[in-house]
Amino acid sequence: MGNSIGSQFVVTSFGESHGRCVGVVVDGCPAGLPIGIEEIQAEVDRRKPQSSAGGTGRREEDRVEVLSGILNGAASGAPICMLAWNKDADSSTYEDIINTPRPGHADYTAFLKYGKYNDFRGGGRFSGRITAGFVMAGAIARKLLALSGIEITAHTVQIGDIKAAPHLSDITRVNVDKSAVRCADKDASAKMIRLIKEVQKEADSIGGIVEVLAFNVPGGLGEPVFDTLEGELSKAFFAIPAARGVEFGAGFAAAAMQGSEHNDLFSMSGKKLVTLTNNAGGISGGLSNGMPIVARVAFKPTASIGKSQRTVDIKTGKKVDLSVGGRHDSCIVPRAVPVVEAMAALVLCDFALRAGTIGRIIK
Amino acid sequence: MGNSIGSQFVVTSFGESHGRCVGVVVDGCPAGLPIGIEEIQAEVDRRKPQSSAGGTGRREEDRVEVLSGILNGAASGAPICMLAWNKDADSSTYEDIINTPRPGHADYTAFLKYGKYNDFRGGGRFSGRITAGFVMAGAIARKLLALSGIEITAHTVQIGDIKAAPHLSDITRVNVDKSAVRCADKDASAKMIRLIKEVQKEADSIGGIVEVLAFNVPGGLGEPVFDTLEGELSKAFFAIPAARGVEFGAGFAAAAMQGSEHNDLFSMSGKKLVTLTNNAGGISGGLSNGMPIVARVAFKPTASIGKSQRTVDIKTGKKVDLSVGGRHDSCIVPRAVPVVEAMAALVLCDFALRAGTIGRIIK
Amino acid sequence: MGNSIGSQFVVTSFGESHGRCVGVVVDGCPAGLPIGIEEIQAEVDRRKPQSSAGGTGRREEDRVEVLSGILNGAASGAPICMLAWNKDADSSTYEDIINTPRPGHADYTAFLKYGKYNDFRGGGRFSGRITAGFVMAGAIARKLLALSGIEITAHTVQIGDIKAAPHLSDITRVNVDKSAVRCADKDASAKMIRLIKEVQKEADSIGGIVEVLAFNVPGGLGEPVFDTLEGELSKAFFAIPAARGVEFGAGFAAAAMQGSEHNDLFSMSGKKLVTLTNNAGGISGGLSNGMPIVARVAFKPTASIGKSQRTVDIKTGKKVDLSVGGRHDSCIVPRAVPVVEAMAALVLCDFALRAGTIGRIIK
Amino acid sequence: MGNSIGSQFVVTSFGESHGRCVGVVVDGCPAGLPIGIEEIQAEVDRRKPQSSAGGTGRREEDRVEVLSGILNGAASGAPICMLAWNKDADSSTYEDIINTPRPGHADYTAFLKYGKYNDFRGGGRFSGRITAGFVMAGAIARKLLALSGIEITAHTVQIGDIKAAPHLSDITRVNVDKSAVRCADKDASAKMIRLIKEVQKEADSIGGIVEVLAFNVPGGLGEPVFDTLEGELSKAFFAIPAARGVEFGAGFAAAAMQGSEHNDLFSMSGKKLVTLTNNAGGISGGLSNGMPIVARVAFKPTASIGKSQRTVDIKTGKKVDLSVGGRHDSCIVPRAVPVVEAMAALVLCDFALRAGTIGRIIK
Repeated sequence: MGNSIGSQFVVTSFGESHGRCVGVVVDGCPAGLPIGIEEIQAEVDRRKPQSSAGGTGRREEDRVEVLSGILNGAASGAPICMLAWNKDADSSTYEDIINTPRPGHADYTAFLKYGKYNDFRGGGRFSGRITAGFVMAGAIARKLLALSGIEITAHTVQIGDIKAAPHLSDITRVNVDKSAVRCADKDASAKMIRLIKEVQKEADSIGGIVEVLAFNVPGGLGEPVFDTLEGELSKAFFAIPAARGVEFGAGFAAAAMQGSEHNDLFSMSGKKLVTLTNNAGGISGGLSNGMPIVARVAFKPTASIGKSQRTVDIKTGKKVDLSVGGRHDSCIVPRAVPVVEAMAALVLCDFALRAGTIGRIIK
Repeated sequence: MGNSIGSQFVVTSFGESHGRCVGVVVDGCPAGLPIGIEEIQAEVDRRKPQSSAGGTGRREEDRVEVLSGILNGAASGAPICMLAWNKDADSSTYEDIINTPRPGHADYTAFLKYGKYNDFRGGGRFSGRITAGFVMAGAIARKLLALSGIEITAHTVQIGDIKAAPHLSDITRVNVDKSAVRCADKDASAKMIRLIKEVQKEADSIGGIVEVLAFNVPGGLGEPVFDTLEGELSKAFFAIPAARGVEFGAGFAAAAMQGSEHNDLFSMSGKKLVTLTNNAGGISGGLSNGMPIVARVAFKPTASIGKSQRTVDIKTGKKVDLSVGGRHDSCIVPRAVPVVEAMAALVLCDFALRAGTIGRIIK
Repeated sequence: MGNSIGSQFVVTSFGESHGRCVGVVVDGCPAGLPIGIEEIQAEVDRRKPQSSAGGTGRREEDRVEVLSGILNGAASGAPICMLAWNKDADSSTYEDIINTPRPGHADYTAFLKYGKYNDFRGGGRFSGRITAGFVMAGAIARKLLALSGIEITAHTVQIGDIKAAPHLSDITRVNVDKSAVRCADKDASAKMIRLIKEVQKEADSIGGIVEVLAFNVPGGLGEPVFDTLEGELSKAFFAIPAARGVEFGAGFAAAAMQGSEHNDLFSMSGKKLVTLTNNAGGISGGLSNGMPIVARVAFKPTASIGKSQRTVDIKTGKKVDLSVGGRHDSCIVPRAVPVVEAMAALVLCDFALRAGTIGRIIK
Repeated sequence: MGNSIGSQFVVTSFGESHGRCVGVVVDGCPAGLPIGIEEIQAEVDRRKPQSSAGGTGRREEDRVEVLSGILNGAASGAPICMLAWNKDADSSTYEDIINTPRPGHADYTAFLKYGKYNDFRGGGRFSGRITAGFVMAGAIARKLLALSGIEITAHTVQIGDIKAAPHLSDITRVNVDKSAVRCADKDASAKMIRLIKEVQKEADSIGGIVEVLAFNVPGGLGEPVFDTLEGELSKAFFAIPAARGVEFGAGFAAAAMQGSEHNDLFSMSGKKLVTLTNNAGGISGGLSNGMPIVARVAFKPTASIGKSQRTVDIKTGKKVDLSVGGRHDSCIVPRAVPVVEAMAALVLCDFALRAGTIGRIIK
């Protein structure tokens, strides 16, 4: 269990990295939502590795197929099953993984939980590849949210120790996609690309931080005290392999702030109540306050590296030196950008449906 | 909705800051668990404000009463309802809140969600006071986990810009409670206390960071891909008012690390597989790996401050200067320590029951 | 676990027959719903035993107290905790129950599940008394549904082999309450009362059937394929102790019907599509069709009887003859009527909220 | 939403009658369970129409494909996605359905819920065809239960007014499958077959009742007070199109019984506590008591009949006479038998996992 998320917009994930497919079932999409398969495909394509950004050279075509729930270009109200067949599966390195768990990977914990029955091939369920299904579901959520004017955009704000300038004004997908690392700060972007090439040469990898912004979110979304906006968003973000931290608004920096500095003062902007700053990241008391929602997700460096690493043969207990072969992203952050967007979209969509903000038939 | 958490160990919260009581229903506690009311009381008492740590001077007696589910000193298998009656309620400042939302508080978002019907008195459902109920539930979860040898300890690692020395070796409750701010690093503790007194004098407040450690957690707890250990823990932590960020292991610092530095290398410790470092914070692939679980929760400074702040009269749209009267904690971090522990306990207990690690009758 | 029901209108039950109280937490009630405690009390009072209908002579005052979630006579949006303190507890027959399980009672299964820790006093969690909490929650659900014009009325249609005339036209609470057994057919009512007196004399008990009707339910409520209207209603009805069967519309009689006889033909009534018959009981494909919803719940005879019955001493394995002392209802059917109504109200309310039919703030 | 069922063994249904496929995702199957595709296929094959029992002449091959979650013949612990591609889709009669709803079908309620976007082709989501997915999931649940010795067998006990002799002693699948209508009483079976042929000649249909028995269910399964065994079983049964009533043990007949007659007396059978009768149907207080579980599900006659029926053109409001063409089962009861078994298996499997009766890795 644990492979479904959401209450009114329920997403169930299935498929493995080197199995037949990766896919998803979306239950709760209002009937009548126009959905073109090319729109879903476009989102999934954004998740593709980009070689200029240190991405793997693997050919991941990921052609999305819709198996159910969409009829004549619109959601029928039935569960929407979508998948992409796996093409580029290479399971040759499989056997070793069980006995010599790769550092930084979930091989060992998967073994603890599922024993030798776990599908270790290419990381199986623990591979970043399953996020392709998340993005398919997110594509539908984005369309639903767009009906209410809600826009979600993520961008890279840090790779290694290179940080983008804070509070950039023009974060749009078009601007973000101009950068191979999806960083809207051109200078930082160039530095990040150089850094990734360097670690690549060392057969090493590097981490980073993705920021996601949600605009035009109506006030009052979220369900205190446990199903808070922060709580559900963070839960969704931590489903992305390699996520290690989540913060909202001022986030961890709030720890060093005084109340008089952190409290966002209220003001009127025309007839709308706004705050003069947004340290709250658009969320107060677990509920959206009408300001842009701001969250950041920290990603660890890719676990797979060519560099030799120490591990153990769990059968003999002897030390083994391991170099993880194959093609890997030396930095997954740019590819995580659309996945972070998708997860944010799923959560906001679920809350909007719980609150009755989105109707059950789209006319 | 949104006031229940957990799947097999289900906690439902009720009560308001200035209502009749704050309480909780715990459903799923195995029958036969010995539970003394004094044990629950002891946990709740740890949440009390300590004046030496900048805590409010309010007398919060919080006598725990058990209404159901415990018979002859043991869980009967029925839902356990517990509460503390409110004694020190002062609702006099109530009327103003609706019209002039306090900066940093949930007054405005509560109004957006529940309208004028929201219980604004003392923060109502959005007050930190409701975490007294979380701690009652956590006390039971701790007892259940202790049967499997699992121990959870939290401590203050940062207040303002004062940081405790990292990787302290002897984090026990006894050591932690020696410090008025619950910081096990004596030097840092003294500085933190001084800092709190300073901000108190300025009628201001200050934030901080709590770290929580869980020892002896068996490997394999967690349910990928959505109900990950990180995901459920962070969701639980964000139910604590003022939480702004959550990270595991190396956390946000992982963004600046290379894979060869971040990957925890495997090694044998006797017959047990361990990792030489714990950048993963005891969690890999959303599952516990047998190493100590390490999480940190960032708290913003207390929203209530005596300093004058700008807000708006939402009826007239005019600017208003507001000073939040009454007694407030100038730093809630020390009081958040037992709450963070409780939330971690609830989540681990739920996963242990889902995994079948804890039986359904305790003999 | 298992003590919560509902998805958007979540009811959590707690309390035991001879514990301190029986109560309930209702989470998801829209803010602003006017709720007077006397309205809840009136519903709970309908559940009282009526001695003229073979009810127990026990004095069950059941004064409802509201602990949270209602402020100034309206729902605040916070969880509503309500309870009635137990007054008339007599635990003297307790010890025997563990060793010599009473036929027809849950003593033995409770022992299998919770061991000796189960609260056997007066049936504990398995007593009909806990349905007092269901009725409190149902009172709120009824008020919410009434805003949309939905009315729910239940009545006794069979006790023993005495059946009310079918398809009575004027099923209103006023008419139903004129009968001590809540049967709107006067002749049948008189016969039922006589029958109950007879079985009472024999120190025996008798079963019966309750029919519940829901009027003005909008079309399209229900969530196929698993969360059907029939499925959720039946699940809720089976939470009433002694329920043994549930049917909708023609129900079991449909088994002997031909399609041409059972199919309800469509017709226009003014501008509204109706069916000429209502064999479907207002539900088709798991969804309401706009016709009155009709369900029947069969109740077994009260398990507690004065007549001597054979059981076993589970410690020695020896046969024991047992006569259940104390005061018991010889027929619980009349008292089940308001409970069936309450359960129907809870389910319809939940579906109405899931469908967005009821708003989140009542103005 | 509403297309998932279960808490620890979660089944998500997708697909439509005349869409690309019907399928299911099973989440929560313990790793290591040996699963051969031919075992799942065998269960699905039992659902095929049998022409000798009034089944449709349609060729439904329903070749099961496994898309994920099974590796080397065993469950990997990952979600198991299974489906059958649709081959025999004929959508020609589609357009008419929207405007002239078929009596007894869900066309009208589907329109109320999903509008014109609903997939009306062949009944879409409301077709009995989607139960093929239920049976795939049930096949896995049966295998899991078999590890604990639990066996589930259903059989036809009534078609029209022909009833099988009660309390047949030898209800096994082998015996049941000897009858074209799956009635183990040979005489009744012959009469049922004749009756079906008669109604078929009249271009009509007929209803019936299926009884399901579960043997060797351990005591204590079920989660009071809402997630009772009866409640969850009935909810699952009502997901089968055409189900109109569910009863347990003595069921509706209990309404006419006295307590002294209905109460099952306890006795020892060797070292095991048993009851001398089984009016409780193996369930007391919502919990299994160790006796065979006995439930009956009433099915209405097939809604599709060739006979002319009155309906309405919802655009014009004018009367229309409708004869439902195509091939239909004149009695779906025999085909419902394996579906009832599957639903019972899903529910018992879920409860066994919730109770910790089945481990998380099958060795």
